Amino acid sequence: MIIVVKPGSTQEQIDHIVAHIEAMGLRTDVSRGIKRTIIGVIGDEDLVRNAPLQAIPGVEEVVPILKPYKLASREFQQEDSSFEVGHGVKVGGGFLAMIAGPCAIEGEEILFEIARHVKAAGANILRGGAFKPRTSPYSFQGLGEEGLKILRAVGDELQMPVVTEVMDTRQVELIDRYTDIFQIGARNMQNFNLLSEVGQTKRPVLLKRGMSATVTDLLMSAEYVLASGNKRVILCERGIKSFDSSTRNLLDLSIVPNVRGLSHLPIIVDPSHATGRPDLIPAMSLAALAGGADGIHIEVHSCPENAMSDGPQALLPPQYARLMDQMRQLAGLFEKTIPVPGGAA
Amino acid sequence: MIIVVKPGSTQEQIDHIVAHIEAMGLRTDVSRGIKRTIIGVIGDEDLVRNAPLQAIPGVEEVVPILKPYKLASREFQQEDSSFEVGHGVKVGGGFLAMIAGPCAIEGEEILFEIARHVKAAGANILRGGAFKPRTSPYSFQGLGEEGLKILRAVGDELQMPVVTEVMDTRQVELIDRYTDIFQIGARNMQNFNLLSEVGQTKRPVLLKRGMSATVTDLLMSAEYVLASGNKRVILCERGIKSFDSSTRNLLDLSIVPNVRGLSHLPIIVDPSHATGRPDLIPAMSLAALAGGADGIHIEVHSCPENAMSDGPQALLPPQYARLMDQMRQLAGLFEKTIPVPGGAA
Amino acid sequence: MIIVVKPGSTQEQIDHIVAHIEAMGLRTDVSRGIKRTIIGVIGDEDLVRNAPLQAIPGVEEVVPILKPYKLASREFQQEDSSFEVGHGVKVGGGFLAMIAGPCAIEGEEILFEIARHVKAAGANILRGGAFKPRTSPYSFQGLGEEGLKILRAVGDELQMPVVTEVMDTRQVELIDRYTDIFQIGARNMQNFNLLSEVGQTKRPVLLKRGMSATVTDLLMSAEYVLASGNKRVILCERGIKSFDSSTRNLLDLSIVPNVRGLSHLPIIVDPSHATGRPDLIPAMSLAALAGGADGIHIEVHSCPENAMSDGPQALLPPQYARLMDQMRQLAGLFEKTIPVPGGAA
Amino acid sequence: MIIVVKPGSTQEQIDHIVAHIEAMGLRTDVSRGIKRTIIGVIGDEDLVRNAPLQAIPGVEEVVPILKPYKLASREFQQEDSSFEVGHGVKVGGGFLAMIAGPCAIEGEEILFEIARHVKAAGANILRGGAFKPRTSPYSFQGLGEEGLKILRAVGDELQMPVVTEVMDTRQVELIDRYTDIFQIGARNMQNFNLLSEVGQTKRPVLLKRGMSATVTDLLMSAEYVLASGNKRVILCERGIKSFDSSTRNLLDLSIVPNVRGLSHLPIIVDPSHATGRPDLIPAMSLAALAGGADGIHIEVHSCPENAMSDGPQALLPPQYARLMDQMRQLAGLFEKTIPVPGGAA
Repeated sequence: MIIVVKPGSTQEQIDHIVAHIEAMGLRTDVSRGIKRTIIGVIGDEDLVRNAPLQAIPGVEEVVPILKPYKLASREFQQEDSSFEVGHGVKVGGGFLAMIAGPCAIEGEEILFEIARHVKAAGANILRGGAFKPRTSPYSFQGLGEEGLKILRAVGDELQMPVVTEVMDTRQVELIDRYTDIFQIGARNMQNFNLLSEVGQTKRPVLLKRGMSATVTDLLMSAEYVLASGNKRVILCERGIKSFDSSTRNLLDLSIVPNVRGLSHLPIIVDPSHATGRPDLIPAMSLAALAGGADGIHIEVHSCPENAMSDGPQALLPPQYARLMDQMRQLAGLFEKTIPVPGGAA
Repeated sequence: MIIVVKPGSTQEQIDHIVAHIEAMGLRTDVSRGIKRTIIGVIGDEDLVRNAPLQAIPGVEEVVPILKPYKLASREFQQEDSSFEVGHGVKVGGGFLAMIAGPCAIEGEEILFEIARHVKAAGANILRGGAFKPRTSPYSFQGLGEEGLKILRAVGDELQMPVVTEVMDTRQVELIDRYTDIFQIGARNMQNFNLLSEVGQTKRPVLLKRGMSATVTDLLMSAEYVLASGNKRVILCERGIKSFDSSTRNLLDLSIVPNVRGLSHLPIIVDPSHATGRPDLIPAMSLAALAGGADGIHIEVHSCPENAMSDGPQALLPPQYARLMDQMRQLAGLFEKTIPVPGGAA
Repeated sequence: MIIVVKPGSTQEQIDHIVAHIEAMGLRTDVSRGIKRTIIGVIGDEDLVRNAPLQAIPGVEEVVPILKPYKLASREFQQEDSSFEVGHGVKVGGGFLAMIAGPCAIEGEEILFEIARHVKAAGANILRGGAFKPRTSPYSFQGLGEEGLKILRAVGDELQMPVVTEVMDTRQVELIDRYTDIFQIGARNMQNFNLLSEVGQTKRPVLLKRGMSATVTDLLMSAEYVLASGNKRVILCERGIKSFDSSTRNLLDLSIVPNVRGLSHLPIIVDPSHATGRPDLIPAMSLAALAGGADGIHIEVHSCPENAMSDGPQALLPPQYARLMDQMRQLAGLFEKTIPVPGGAA
Repeated sequence: MIIVVKPGSTQEQIDHIVAHIEAMGLRTDVSRGIKRTIIGVIGDEDLVRNAPLQAIPGVEEVVPILKPYKLASREFQQEDSSFEVGHGVKVGGGFLAMIAGPCAIEGEEILFEIARHVKAAGANILRGGAFKPRTSPYSFQGLGEEGLKILRAVGDELQMPVVTEVMDTRQVELIDRYTDIFQIGARNMQNFNLLSEVGQTKRPVLLKRGMSATVTDLLMSAEYVLASGNKRVILCERGIKSFDSSTRNLLDLSIVPNVRGLSHLPIIVDPSHATGRPDLIPAMSLAALAGGADGIHIEVHSCPENAMSDGPQALLPPQYARLMDQMRQLAGLFEKTIPVPGGAA
């Protein structure tokens, strides 16, 4: 439910409305726009269904939100969300997140080499996993805190914001000390405790779609983060399960315009995990941008055959550079901006 | 299996090789290129597995095709297939098929009106169903031959090639008298008798992917048409079944670069049936083109609310015109041509 | 829509009601029960939506059928359908169809051998394909009419009803001369012309579920047969597409009670095509019976490694005999009957 | 990899083998059977690929395990796992887990009432959620520790083992104080940290299959628990995502015999979450038992319309009692035992 405040209302009146709502057991979220102030009402709307809210002084209109997600909905916020994620890089509202890097952080030298390449090609966010969700307990599970230190060092040196995955509520505090953006992986998309936990931090969250999540499921998971107070959520399509094993997963690009109609949150696309095939990544990256994606997430490794995780699906740095050239042209055609980290765009 | 003929071989030698192969119970397909001649061997390769084909005079090399589809494979033909479909419109090899029109043919006047609009907007092939595969036996099943006559008349008047669906082997002869291109619908993608039957005509075939067909299934169905002697097959992605009911089907754009790697046949995309939602069609059309599709198939109706079939998913003529403007720009960026039917491009 | 006729109405009154309905462009289906007569109204119900049918003399009640399928619905007929399929074998309403035989008919001797085994084990319907829908145009396509003759001869000799697949409207007449039951395969479940064509014959139809058909899709396809005048339809679950390639398809047993709630038609289960794995067939056959299936369809071959089609998924005759023993016990527990063909049960 | 120890080897020899393996960086798991001792080697087998293990004194044979899961595989342990879960209830190896109870714990009185009913009907494990994974942050999230206390009290009073869901690594210690069995829900099936954490407790784990997990995915997740030292894992099929929305999920019963071939772990079936439809639960429960399931998990509520979570899919106590009667008969036919908690079977 959204309460539209009458233009010209005083702060006192707004405080009064808020107090009134909160007394009923709900939470509020006040957005002060240039033209008018809007109060989002969060929680079980049954509590106020029959309350005469319209009669409170200062209330112009009470607008119900019919979707099960509230804060994430376009009804709640009409303009695209757009926010900074670190080192001056904006995402959303016409600004494209170009995330690149290796699947796992394997060492400082190799990460440095890859990061330099992708930054030179135009990437504006560096990715790398320190804690890896591996299907097998016997596979390489990541370097842990050592990996986080490397990632931070490389990000600082190159002035790039960094993103890394968090898998456990107990890791949030540790990872918060090193990363700019938390990544929630597909397998944890409905780990609701983890969503609430990162929702209580001050860092943007890259939320990957679960392997068989509907668009509503995805937005409900975003709602968990938003409802915990964190407004900076970037959604990410990374492929869903399918009956055709010729690709690793099935990239569902239609979720991009679908989300953009339903929500103000930015949504990016990860063709690396979606296809698992470097030969399909360039075409699907261009398709994603043309379809309205707010960014592209690509795994890049300088020697995929030696990568400790997901090597075969990574692009080589020169392949990534060629693709970035094409993506830049396409971004130009659609009047989107690819921010340059750490400085002048 | 492909037999590469030695450069400079005489026609007599080629005839001898062909006779040799056919004597073993297989069929042949001779392609005379500028540099060299290639003989495709079609049928059960077990029959020649141990025959010393390399010893036949004039044979330079015997190349096995490992894919289950032979004539459809890139191994069999490296360059993109490109062919005319009527009124001077080429498809494939950089030429884009822009197919538009109503789901069903409802009358001459209304089809004329829609056709004029889409042609003016840049469409180069007119679609319309005369025999409709309807889930319910109680729904409108199409105008039949009367519809075909209307389609032909409108196509002739506007000098546009036309495409219409064939559902039954017994209809092939009738429809062949009116259409330029046969459409095989998703529900008949594995109606192998129908595939063989249209494979024996001289008209191009628009083969839609079945609702849960793999890329191999689709190419195997194309192989049925090719193996019957008809080389002009256009594949079409139109969405597959999925667990998310927010769209009618799930558009699988990754099949576009996937097919382009495996086959020389053109592949187009139908976002109308794939999404069932006019609000998603523009974004997915642009995504399809950027992903390498050889054309876009869109349902257009001047009053969708009155359409006798699939109305709600149709674009209005002005929406289609706006989208064609954007698609033209994108085609330019990717150096693709949208042929103009009946005349100068 | 169903019209319940007043008890004690005369034939004249009933004829009058029928004439009235048909004058509106609809068809009727009169069921004379012991207690009362019911008239099914078939066709586009919009035509009678506002007609005062209740006022026609003899009409007691007008009951709308809300499902899109009418004749197939439980609303239309409350008791389970039960009918003979040949050689005295009844199916439905407590009578179990035990269908067994090879995938393809390969020769008289081998079919005879398999048929004798399965009949001895308790099978009551013999299956075998003469026209095979093969994914590849280069695979064995069946023996055609020669195969049909063999099937008929073996069925007659052993007094077993036989079932074989029809793939093309042009084959209906030919196959009708040899078979007891028409099979419509999964790939043709939505070949609506073929459904209408077998609907005009007098033979029962075994309708297999398409690979991604919903329960509504399946019942709508049955409706095509029923609406053409043929009431004897047996539905068959044979597995749907899934993301787990450890089985050939995914057996969806929940469709059995689901169909039984929605429709009066019998539904059987084919674990051979559903799993593609002989090691899973016994467990899934027992599960299907316990879940309420009206029969089990199993491929049996005396030397699967030499079978010309789908060999690896066939059971050996002794495996089938062991499984039939278990199924007989389970049938006893659930008070179902396995009819013995050609004679005393 | 499994090392079979020579019969008659001394403890010293076994210790020596273990020390040898562990010195290479691997872990071991020693199973002392009646006839012989087996040492499981856990970890990255590449480390010992070329080591001459066969030469170590006491080693009879070195058997590689080809599956990606090791401890969970039938190769590792041929006999069915069978273990006690509390109050004398055994699961696996012919003993059936009959789990019943409400979705969420709502209060002591109501849980008591439901529990008494299901115990009287023959259920041997009581379920109830204290921490609920809800798609919406605004839905009832469970009573937390208060709920755990109620569950423990009711279980103790009725002498039934209890199972409840754990969603967060931080909850493991708390829940461990109250429950007999940890449940890992479908959404957390690949929450690898949580799996490792419950793997370090001494309580059995009920591991539900993820909504689009393959059989390999499920066994790999079980492997996480086993590899952490906890051998008592019960797998649970609870339906997967599907394109047919007529049921909540799609029950995949074929995973039961599939798992039983690949693994020694017990696997049970939850038709409540799988179908979401009380009318389908009885048929699917019977099907599951006939297909070889080691137990059935059913939601029961005495007034589903008032249930705070998932009410509409619950059975009423009398429906459950009738179903248990049928299941008892079926268990008898298949010579399975339904243990009676707290006393004489």
